[in-house]
Amino acid sequence: MQTKGVLVVVSGFSGAGKGTVMKALLEKYDNYALSVSATTRSPRPGEENGREYFFLTESQFEDMIRNDELIEHARYVDHYYGTPRKYVEDKMAAGKDVILEIEIQGALNIKKKFPDALLVFIVPPTAKDLKKRLIGRGTESAEVIEKRLRRAAEESDGMDSYDYIVVNDDVDTCVEDLHSLIRSSHFKESANTDLVARMKQELHDMTK
Amino acid sequence: MQTKGVLVVVSGFSGAGKGTVMKALLEKYDNYALSVSATTRSPRPGEENGREYFFLTESQFEDMIRNDELIEHARYVDHYYGTPRKYVEDKMAAGKDVILEIEIQGALNIKKKFPDALLVFIVPPTAKDLKKRLIGRGTESAEVIEKRLRRAAEESDGMDSYDYIVVNDDVDTCVEDLHSLIRSSHFKESANTDLVARMKQELHDMTK
Repeated sequence: MQTKGVLVVVSGFSGAGKGTVMKALLEKYDNYALSVSATTRSPRPGEENGREYFFLTESQFEDMIRNDELIEHARYVDHYYGTPRKYVEDKMAAGKDVILEIEIQGALNIKKKFPDALLVFIVPPTAKDLKKRLIGRGTESAEVIEKRLRRAAEESDGMDSYDYIVVNDDVDTCVEDLHSLIRSSHFKESANTDLVARMKQELHDMTK
Repeated sequence: MQTKGVLVVVSGFSGAGKGTVMKALLEKYDNYALSVSATTRSPRPGEENGREYFFLTESQFEDMIRNDELIEHARYVDHYYGTPRKYVEDKMAAGKDVILEIEIQGALNIKKKFPDALLVFIVPPTAKDLKKRLIGRGTESAEVIEKRLRRAAEESDGMDSYDYIVVNDDVDTCVEDLHSLIRSSHFKESANTDLVARMKQELHDMTK
């Protein structure tokens, strides 16, 4: 029934398990395409160009802005972050549901340009669970954990701007919830105006 | 995660297979409750009071209007049709997703009073399929079929007012589509304001 894919923005606190959920979602279903953001920050150890991010120089990034090659971009602290247009538009045209894993500022910019985009915020069941998961990683100092929690508290103030809130208590359930939510958006009237127009035409022709 | 059920209005042309789909949905999943409408028209052969409709007198119906015991009502031709409030509110409070199988006028009234209600319109794949199904029933005269098609043409003009359009090509698929659509609506931000408020509070308390 659908022809065009939908645009889905997924945000969530660091430590909410978003990465694991996205990975499982993309492995399980083949209707998704994960957009890779562009940034001017330097790659961290283990990060690969084109996988975590497209790592660009300031002037490359500013060229993309000038040429309207980004569907949204924002500046955090000292660096640019943005979503390359071509990948998103090509994949959507090919019927893929494109997922952007970006933060609230970018999410709100997307919503302005694509009112039909789904904005989804993934949360752990409770703040305590978030803290537990951050500690459980065992890789971060108490200071970093504290910083992430402060950041999460800030980010939580933006949760109202999202269309959907999905709790990640169990990864498999969360994947199914996300999948059914995205799948359902294909049934929106606004995504089916051609079908509605055709049905009206056929019925009116048939009873003329 | 959800506590309160959602309100779902399902409409569709006569012959779109709505009845079969509703029956299968209610048999398969136990989170649904089907609201029974009240009417002042006479029962047809085989119809049972409290199953197809609550059959009321004009004065009983008007009492219900006066006592605000209907969440919507409308007058078609010579008869009243309406949705009793108590059943809907009790079931929703008990966490059931309540389905109203009503026509467009009622659907739009519901949307005004319950902006979070889902308005779903079920259609056959094409107008020809609709005609074929109406003929296939073998119970209706050419005249009645013609009348139903004219009615469908009129109703199709209201399809744009619905939130979702679901094609009923295969009953099982249609049931799954409807179920995932209704299930997803529990993730709406507007259905999770308590969760969002709690999360904010916990995170801010934790990082005070």
